[in-house]
Amino acid sequence: MVNRNAHFYPIILAGGRGTRFWPLSRKRRAKQLLALDGKQTMIQQTAQRLAPLALPTHFWIITNEDSRPAILRQLRKIPAKQIMAEPIGRNTAPAIGLAAFLLLRRDPNAVLGMFPSDHVIGDAAQYRATLSRGIEIASAGENIVVLGIRPTRPEIGYGYIEAGSHETDAAGEHGSLRVRRFTEKPDLAAAAKFVESGNYFWNSGMFLWRADTLADALREYLPKTARLLERIASTYGTGKFADTFRKLYPKCENISIDYAVLEPRSAQGERQSHIFCLPSDFGWNDLGSWAALHEHRVAKAKPANGGPVSASGSVDLNAKNNFVYAPGKFVALVGVSNLIVVETEDALLVTTLDQSQEVGKVVTYLDEKKLHKLV
Amino acid sequence: MVNRNAHFYPIILAGGRGTRFWPLSRKRRAKQLLALDGKQTMIQQTAQRLAPLALPTHFWIITNEDSRPAILRQLRKIPAKQIMAEPIGRNTAPAIGLAAFLLLRRDPNAVLGMFPSDHVIGDAAQYRATLSRGIEIASAGENIVVLGIRPTRPEIGYGYIEAGSHETDAAGEHGSLRVRRFTEKPDLAAAAKFVESGNYFWNSGMFLWRADTLADALREYLPKTARLLERIASTYGTGKFADTFRKLYPKCENISIDYAVLEPRSAQGERQSHIFCLPSDFGWNDLGSWAALHEHRVAKAKPANGGPVSASGSVDLNAKNNFVYAPGKFVALVGVSNLIVVETEDALLVTTLDQSQEVGKVVTYLDEKKLHKLV
Repeated sequence: MVNRNAHFYPIILAGGRGTRFWPLSRKRRAKQLLALDGKQTMIQQTAQRLAPLALPTHFWIITNEDSRPAILRQLRKIPAKQIMAEPIGRNTAPAIGLAAFLLLRRDPNAVLGMFPSDHVIGDAAQYRATLSRGIEIASAGENIVVLGIRPTRPEIGYGYIEAGSHETDAAGEHGSLRVRRFTEKPDLAAAAKFVESGNYFWNSGMFLWRADTLADALREYLPKTARLLERIASTYGTGKFADTFRKLYPKCENISIDYAVLEPRSAQGERQSHIFCLPSDFGWNDLGSWAALHEHRVAKAKPANGGPVSASGSVDLNAKNNFVYAPGKFVALVGVSNLIVVETEDALLVTTLDQSQEVGKVVTYLDEKKLHKLV
Repeated sequence: MVNRNAHFYPIILAGGRGTRFWPLSRKRRAKQLLALDGKQTMIQQTAQRLAPLALPTHFWIITNEDSRPAILRQLRKIPAKQIMAEPIGRNTAPAIGLAAFLLLRRDPNAVLGMFPSDHVIGDAAQYRATLSRGIEIASAGENIVVLGIRPTRPEIGYGYIEAGSHETDAAGEHGSLRVRRFTEKPDLAAAAKFVESGNYFWNSGMFLWRADTLADALREYLPKTARLLERIASTYGTGKFADTFRKLYPKCENISIDYAVLEPRSAQGERQSHIFCLPSDFGWNDLGSWAALHEHRVAKAKPANGGPVSASGSVDLNAKNNFVYAPGKFVALVGVSNLIVVETEDALLVTTLDQSQEVGKVVTYLDEKKLHKLV
């Protein structure tokens, strides 16, 4: 059973650009605004998935000016003033930090969840059950909860969490592991060992903590930024807010919450840090590239030999395992395999499953050449 | 120097569909109607290239109902009634045969040239010089002249001509070789030997002969078809023609002129057959597939690493030797090589240089599935 926690506030971070999904993703149509998996967009799915856990008025979105108009259209139930556009991207620490200082003034018992806006979750019920447990653990005081994904392959693109001892509570099973260490992205050999060991988890980027716990941590580890954020938060609801936000936020440190708070805090040792990992098995996929989306679609739909094709029709002759997105076209694949082909009104991308993580470089090129219409 | 020969009649055969150029080629937009090499279409280039050798009123086009409207638009100088649509395709023997019987009635000294409508010729001046010599040889009586392309690779897709002894005339060099034998498409080992030998040539499908020589040959080798064609020709210019053509032409044998006349005639021996091969070096390319067009463009334009790209713009990252046709799109190639990608308003083809000769099978599939709009 999943119940709404009256003090739970989901903070959805939607400031990314998702350039690896070019040409479908654009500056004003970032990855989280695309319906990459189903009919709803990634951010709509994120909000809907969390809806049973929190009041609509408890959702906050931190995004940017380019994405805000589309988010307002896509998430009509969330109060518009809680869909906030950063004047400039400052990574996750200032974003979630601002939310902590804002909510602390509203609800001294607020528990924050930090959620990326562009991930896929296969089993939403399982996801909510995991989160409910996490909210409970986080509510209990100075605990920090991180959702750790049980690794299924030696992925070198993710950070890993090394878990320590099992935690039990009065009722028996606490359901979490104490965190021993956050690790940087490993090389392939290390990643393979991590997967084998059984006590390493992928860092999902989903965290839970009380607003006061986070605020205290920021004051300790990022004092200058914490002061700036407190000043911004203090003007919220007044005529000064817009101006203060625009002037002070860019002065915050450009740093992730992992690097700013979690890593130094975990260095205190697994007993002292109060960081807990909730092992998670709810079919998580961060859709980090076209290849990841391909893999997700293959696993979900088991498409024909040629591979997953979005088109008005298609035929494959001696073709295998391609990903094609060309809505409205009839697609013929002849003797090709492991390709990614994505077509939009004004652009055509051709790459391979292996190389699709390089697609962001195309956007870098287009930015450099000032081909604004294409980015 | 090239002079117009008052009795020379170019017969351009334009009944092919060119399915290997799908999705660009369609039933009503066959390969010869496409501008695959430059601004003019293949058939326009064919006619223009021959223009200095023959009067505009001497051109005849044999095509089909699907292509005739476009040819009328593309070749306005040629008399409309000389752009003839076969009621049904019957291969080259009836097509060129009909022309022979028609012209015989107009000009007893007519010399016919049979020309495919969809080939590329790199050096038009050299081409015309070769043809001029061929017209001279053909004019001289019962000679048949075939243009033989000096082979540059062991191509297994072509028929070969085995040449025999050099022919000299009173003035010294006749400029041609007697033909010993026409061979079927060879296997790779045989083709390699042919190329090495120096006396094998690719059969270009371009022939020259007097109308009466061809008519006599047809009467000898295809007597039933010859009689049908004579009956059709006898009604030309009368009200009965359309009906006779429609009724009798389908009864002609469905056979190539090579197989019907040239091969049996060459079996008489190189002295008796009077078939001459003119060795030709004018940059011929039959553009038999997307890969052949790719090769032609690479040789002609030496494009950037990524390969020849027709698009509004493009970038290649670690990409090599691809052929892309996507007009109006910005194309990004990331880590791919030796691919062919062709996009039209309603279709997208993805294949490889190696497999592009299989593209015709896509059209077979579309025909079978009655996807008429796509063929």
